[in-house]
Amino acid sequence: MERFDVAIIGTGPGGLEAAINCRIRNKSVLLIGSKDLSFKMSRLEKVSNYLGLGTVTGEEMNKAFKKHLDEFNLDITEDKIQTVYAMGDYFALQGKEVMYEASSVILATGVVASKPLKGENEFLGRGVSYCATCDAPLYRGKEAIVVGYSQKEEEEANFLAEIAKKVYYLPVYKDERHLDSRIEEITGKPTEIRREDKTLTLVTDKGEYTANGVFILRDAVSAGQLVPGLETDGAHVIVDRSMKTNINGLFACGDITGLPYQIAKAVGEGNIAALSAVSYLATLRRN
Amino acid sequence: MERFDVAIIGTGPGGLEAAINCRIRNKSVLLIGSKDLSFKMSRLEKVSNYLGLGTVTGEEMNKAFKKHLDEFNLDITEDKIQTVYAMGDYFALQGKEVMYEASSVILATGVVASKPLKGENEFLGRGVSYCATCDAPLYRGKEAIVVGYSQKEEEEANFLAEIAKKVYYLPVYKDERHLDSRIEEITGKPTEIRREDKTLTLVTDKGEYTANGVFILRDAVSAGQLVPGLETDGAHVIVDRSMKTNINGLFACGDITGLPYQIAKAVGEGNIAALSAVSYLATLRRN
Repeated sequence: MERFDVAIIGTGPGGLEAAINCRIRNKSVLLIGSKDLSFKMSRLEKVSNYLGLGTVTGEEMNKAFKKHLDEFNLDITEDKIQTVYAMGDYFALQGKEVMYEASSVILATGVVASKPLKGENEFLGRGVSYCATCDAPLYRGKEAIVVGYSQKEEEEANFLAEIAKKVYYLPVYKDERHLDSRIEEITGKPTEIRREDKTLTLVTDKGEYTANGVFILRDAVSAGQLVPGLETDGAHVIVDRSMKTNINGLFACGDITGLPYQIAKAVGEGNIAALSAVSYLATLRRN
Repeated sequence: MERFDVAIIGTGPGGLEAAINCRIRNKSVLLIGSKDLSFKMSRLEKVSNYLGLGTVTGEEMNKAFKKHLDEFNLDITEDKIQTVYAMGDYFALQGKEVMYEASSVILATGVVASKPLKGENEFLGRGVSYCATCDAPLYRGKEAIVVGYSQKEEEEANFLAEIAKKVYYLPVYKDERHLDSRIEEITGKPTEIRREDKTLTLVTDKGEYTANGVFILRDAVSAGQLVPGLETDGAHVIVDRSMKTNINGLFACGDITGLPYQIAKAVGEGNIAALSAVSYLATLRRN
């Protein structure tokens, strides 16, 4: 298996800046995320405070960032990392279907805007899952509820519908839906997950739904769930000013490191995280 | 005297980003520095790692930043702050000839690349000065040595030559000189300043020069000298992740806060410093 120098998880401003800096320093880079870059950013109506670009739409900013990536031939691997395992002198990253290896990792996944639902953490791995693609095979002939926090999660629900006996889909957004006809759309604000006799119940303000499993599909998995052993403060990873986390070789940048949630801050931190990762790689080689 | 909400010292990437953010938040901004922005930056042959701009020259980057400033009608006050005094709920800033007042201050002066000369700190205010414009009147009929660390310091030397009996100028750079014909240019690497009977001696590797005073003109004054009471670590100001210094209402961003000396880092920190200053101003108003 190829072991990359640096794996960067997330294709928002922080991850992209980190990738460009690692590439300039001649490191092999695995950049994982969406080829559409940051969904949240591209939807911004207006950004005025990123020095040098003037007042632009999120879409224009997205285009400028993509152009910059293309200049460095930086490819994006479209996957969603489920877990990052610190193995000592390298990291193993569990994707939806594939494992990756890298000597260092930069977390740039953004921050989970919503709090976990009541019961979500408790039943994670016991009926609650964050990855439909990963766990779909377990749902052959069974029923599943999918709670999607953005339009792009519909693809996972559609995939699940090909295998499961029944899929309920609860969109936590207002965009138009493009769902497989076998999916039953439900409405309401999700509040709680309960579990009894291996049966999961999703409670919303408009009713309760029961199935064999509940998939919670958000843009980002919370940092603590993504990396076992990572020191966090609520939704945020604890970093020092060089963007180091408590795990050797693991760095973070962007919204995941805390407020303010700003593009310029994310880019600045991506720059620092990359240079810190490069320094770390140099110490690895000396040992 | 007008009291500004925020005074920003320095027109490099950090200071500019801070100014734009303060303006967007409807704060009155005093932006002090060079209208040519960062001399160091504009001289860069190539910058590739500032996300969104692709590969550009320092001059192109400078132009993009200026355009962004113009969009927000941000004027630059061309002055050089000598000292910042923390007065409790506001700051007094001593310029070359004028005093300014501001409720909060963001230091974005960059970092002094060279170490102070031997004797420099010791004789500061006793023959050693950082501001020719300020102290020129004291040199009527006297002799002065000017050590200039960049071309733009020549203007100060020329001004001094109109008043002083004799001015020696030692350029610590290689650009062409445009000096008043009354100035005697000297060469060598400055190493030490000595003082005896109110006479100062500048020691270089090529000889010694004696005069009534020595002016050391660098792009930036060291942070500790600029703000009495400021906690520093060598050439750097100590800040936390919200860019706060140990002085209430005083923030810092860019190279002055430490390595890495990078444009993206400076911009990210300028963004954070501005938002922290805005929060600070809100607490002032509540009191």
